[in-house]
Amino acid sequence: MALLDNIDSPNDLKKLNPEDIESLAQEIRQFILEKVAETGGHLASNLGVVELTLALHYVYNSPVDKFIWDVGHQSYIHKILTSRKGQFHTLRQYGGLSGFPKRSESIHDIFETGHSSTALSAALGIAKARDLRQEKYHVVAIIGDGALTGGMAMEALNDAGRLSSRLTIILNDNEMSIAPNVGALASYLYKIRSNPRYKWFKKVVEQFLRKLPLGGNWIAEKAEKVKNSLKYLLVPGVLFEELGYTYIGPVDGHDLPMLLRILKRARQVNGPTLVHVVTQKGKGYPFSESNPAQYHGVSPFDIDNGKGANGKKNTSFSKTLGIYLAQLAHTRHEIVAITAAMPDGTGLSYFQTKHPERFFDVGIAEQHAVTFAAGLAASNMRPVVAIYSTFLQRAYDQIVHDVCRQNLPVVFAIDRSGLVGEDGDTHQGVFDISFLRHVPNLTIMAPKNTEELKHMLDYVLHMNGPAAIRYSKDSKGTVEDLPSFPLQHLKWETLIEGRDIAIIAVGSMVETALQVADILKKKGLQTTVINARIIKPLDYEMLSQLTETHPLLWVTMEDNAVEGGFGSSVNEFAMGQDMDVRIRNIGIPDRFIEHGSIDELKKSLHLEPDAIAMQICAMCGKENEHE
Amino acid sequence: MALLDNIDSPNDLKKLNPEDIESLAQEIRQFILEKVAETGGHLASNLGVVELTLALHYVYNSPVDKFIWDVGHQSYIHKILTSRKGQFHTLRQYGGLSGFPKRSESIHDIFETGHSSTALSAALGIAKARDLRQEKYHVVAIIGDGALTGGMAMEALNDAGRLSSRLTIILNDNEMSIAPNVGALASYLYKIRSNPRYKWFKKVVEQFLRKLPLGGNWIAEKAEKVKNSLKYLLVPGVLFEELGYTYIGPVDGHDLPMLLRILKRARQVNGPTLVHVVTQKGKGYPFSESNPAQYHGVSPFDIDNGKGANGKKNTSFSKTLGIYLAQLAHTRHEIVAITAAMPDGTGLSYFQTKHPERFFDVGIAEQHAVTFAAGLAASNMRPVVAIYSTFLQRAYDQIVHDVCRQNLPVVFAIDRSGLVGEDGDTHQGVFDISFLRHVPNLTIMAPKNTEELKHMLDYVLHMNGPAAIRYSKDSKGTVEDLPSFPLQHLKWETLIEGRDIAIIAVGSMVETALQVADILKKKGLQTTVINARIIKPLDYEMLSQLTETHPLLWVTMEDNAVEGGFGSSVNEFAMGQDMDVRIRNIGIPDRFIEHGSIDELKKSLHLEPDAIAMQICAMCGKENEHE
Repeated sequence: MALLDNIDSPNDLKKLNPEDIESLAQEIRQFILEKVAETGGHLASNLGVVELTLALHYVYNSPVDKFIWDVGHQSYIHKILTSRKGQFHTLRQYGGLSGFPKRSESIHDIFETGHSSTALSAALGIAKARDLRQEKYHVVAIIGDGALTGGMAMEALNDAGRLSSRLTIILNDNEMSIAPNVGALASYLYKIRSNPRYKWFKKVVEQFLRKLPLGGNWIAEKAEKVKNSLKYLLVPGVLFEELGYTYIGPVDGHDLPMLLRILKRARQVNGPTLVHVVTQKGKGYPFSESNPAQYHGVSPFDIDNGKGANGKKNTSFSKTLGIYLAQLAHTRHEIVAITAAMPDGTGLSYFQTKHPERFFDVGIAEQHAVTFAAGLAASNMRPVVAIYSTFLQRAYDQIVHDVCRQNLPVVFAIDRSGLVGEDGDTHQGVFDISFLRHVPNLTIMAPKNTEELKHMLDYVLHMNGPAAIRYSKDSKGTVEDLPSFPLQHLKWETLIEGRDIAIIAVGSMVETALQVADILKKKGLQTTVINARIIKPLDYEMLSQLTETHPLLWVTMEDNAVEGGFGSSVNEFAMGQDMDVRIRNIGIPDRFIEHGSIDELKKSLHLEPDAIAMQICAMCGKENEHE
Repeated sequence: MALLDNIDSPNDLKKLNPEDIESLAQEIRQFILEKVAETGGHLASNLGVVELTLALHYVYNSPVDKFIWDVGHQSYIHKILTSRKGQFHTLRQYGGLSGFPKRSESIHDIFETGHSSTALSAALGIAKARDLRQEKYHVVAIIGDGALTGGMAMEALNDAGRLSSRLTIILNDNEMSIAPNVGALASYLYKIRSNPRYKWFKKVVEQFLRKLPLGGNWIAEKAEKVKNSLKYLLVPGVLFEELGYTYIGPVDGHDLPMLLRILKRARQVNGPTLVHVVTQKGKGYPFSESNPAQYHGVSPFDIDNGKGANGKKNTSFSKTLGIYLAQLAHTRHEIVAITAAMPDGTGLSYFQTKHPERFFDVGIAEQHAVTFAAGLAASNMRPVVAIYSTFLQRAYDQIVHDVCRQNLPVVFAIDRSGLVGEDGDTHQGVFDISFLRHVPNLTIMAPKNTEELKHMLDYVLHMNGPAAIRYSKDSKGTVEDLPSFPLQHLKWETLIEGRDIAIIAVGSMVETALQVADILKKKGLQTTVINARIIKPLDYEMLSQLTETHPLLWVTMEDNAVEGGFGSSVNEFAMGQDMDVRIRNIGIPDRFIEHGSIDELKKSLHLEPDAIAMQICAMCGKENEHE
């Protein structure tokens, strides 16, 4: 790595001549491949923007000029060029380098991202702050074509087109979000990329213009009007031009000399500018080139044969959802499945193969996904919307206003609930109980294992109102060896009958609860363990019984924020019923949770069985007793 | 009302000949004017769509064909034509006719709306359900140009353009949402409306085409290509055409014969169609024509002179926000103010007059508003985002992911928190504490009066992190006669020192708490009343003291859902500290709250002082004692 060894900042890069940058691109590609093969991480998206990132840092002057990376998982090259090359062996590990932009890591990370489609709004804010201060620097947002279909990106595109601030949007068009893109905008971009008509037609029109008679003022005026109108013919990005942008492109995102030329030109434009760069996801590594979706987010793998890069592997719950829902849909023709750009991750791609006409991938558009489902439900279909917990945050209003307020039978399959691990604070699914349980009409469930998920699907697909089923990515918490029974009513399940203490556990914490009970038994405490598979409504009957049988202590356990979480609803019930009972709520504390393995995170949060058992013992005056 | 008297269903309408419909339009306009002058309600938007609604019901066949009204406050004529004419004297009153579409009111109300920009997603869901069932009917969504700039509408526009279902979108273009519209899309629509160039140019191009040599195949092929490309010149709605829609328009929305012709044409089109209808908000009533924003939502008024229609009147809190923020901004140049299409309602239009360059109305785009603010804050500005509680629901993810996760100093001024009254279930602001208090890093406050709001603004504009201040529309709960003091720390305020019971009240419930204390005093109970002006973090010190001094009973009072609300956080604290204290949480029960006056709603929810006092007495064994 002759060149890369000497690169530690954008200034080092600027010392190279353009030909060297092309060689550097290949070294960086090799570096990323080697590092990600070792640690896991986002591969394909980063391989796609090697030349683009180099060109950006060569032409612009970070951190004076500001780069905002939408989604942010494609910021590895940016990190390499900004003094973080040496930390890549810690990528996405507990205490190590984040897989996303982090302000705490570098002054070159201007704004943190993770969820899609936020960069344009942030960049516009930064550009406006600059204008108000009468400062001079460039603000550049880099956004994928998939992210551009997210509603908030379109809101920002609309607003920025009006405010006419100097702002450059790099549209990184790889025809992919994580899955192939959908939507009219995607077809439009494809048309621009692929249509040679524009070039041919430009000639025809220019000839026509030359033939227009010159002379009187009237004619000249008309000719001018014709020229203006002909902008529609000459500019491929007419849609963006209509919205007030100077459109530049499309340009090959792997042609470095061309990229440098185009970016220098973009830097000169005043006002909002859109540079349309066409890149190939996974570029330069045969395995990821041919299957970019599989090499989007990968676990450690073998570079030589690509093996181990199981980015597409479903969690056990996701897999069950896809297969079981497809099975139900064979006889129930009203079942439809909806995803927002996550057909593989949610397991619904299996459903798609069986029932393509009843499967809808709406793209990165969670709000639309939910209200689209509401429309289907209002017409007596049975939509199941599968979205990751963290992304469902974006559809909170639609869940409240469009689905639950009308009491429509939409089923939310909330994947990646609880801790998700290496993606870190932008992706943890630790708020869903808190942002859902106050929504009237909504039933919320969490299965202890995949068998129970099936029983829940059976149940909710016969309900007369909305329901959410949350389950985690982590397969450890799924007690697959325990039997599960059909839900007759919205009742909890007692897994161990004890006496002294009652643990009421949700979803992935059921296994932890069983382990805690084991430890407590050795300390002389007989623990009842309850699978609170219905988060809302609470099992009032069982809670009332517990007051009689377990007056000493109840412990609620969840992989959701304690604030406003499941335990909090048990507190409310106890207070509302004027019950004299001690309750300890165990869950995620009131802070954002960083990246790391789920095990490491649980340890740091004192959520492993030993730590929880110790807490309980302390409350029961058992801390000093020997086993 | 010779014609209207005989109209009770769309079938009655269809019996009229087209000329009679024009007369009917005038009768309906008069009817609405008279009714709304009496009850209050949405005036200007309904006066604008009289002809459009008549034409829709004349050409289509509701309820077989489905109308989905975006926002829904413009559905009065639709209600009049669908058997609800006789209930208009109860409009927006408790137990009366809703101001929005309601499925429980009529089979002609297909999907309920209230928040903006939802209709296209819902309509697409309904259209897809129809296709899957191989049924045949028309689905028509009616959406304003303001609502079209909401992100979820653009998500749906993008998705519908691809899915190519038969779906008609009526773009009701009145150049207004509630305030005049903003954004690039708005300019684009204006350009279409106002540009005669298209007509002139059409002629020139047609002449050009006629002059192209006819003959060989090569030439014919080229000529065809030219024709295709010329679509860009001939079709004003090129942006919509690019997205896959058949664009029809623009058409004068008050020209009934033309509307009928155009809608009949639209009904023939297969696939997604966009009909661009230009209407005038407030049409037909001189006062609302000249000032549609003031006559958007009105209280009862005098038809003859328009007096009393104080649609623009700010609440005391909104007014204070606008004036005080403008005052602070004179010396603090980093303060900027942001609204999402509510400059008048939030009081920020005053700020706008004083600091136009630091005021941003981003249109109906709450998500963008919040992340735009995050971008400004990341560049050391001090943004204040004023949004109604119910609309802020749409930016939940942005608050979590973009603002609070990065701990950016954005201030949320949450207007219309608590019960809002006549707008009903789609607009009540009763969830904000529940959807915000679990978000790490966020400080949440609620002032007891406008003076305290000022002190809070002083405080939060010096904080190093995000803060939200919530306040209600109802001026009754603002105890303006009580003194307020600068916030030194995040501490609560004791308003009455009692002994037996502690009431911990939030915002507008402070006044109720004082009234309850009065009643309880007569029952022999000495009540402490605490103004819990800081909702998060709790005043732990004061709570610890209360355990000592008030062991009998704490009562929390808030105009937010009990589930996950403020009281719930007090419970969590008590449980977490293992405190032996009884707590009663008083607030909004777990259901959606219908429309009616705030007083009527409070009464129905047992939230008036008498009802609360009675509950407390019952808990203290005082219910049978005489005063």
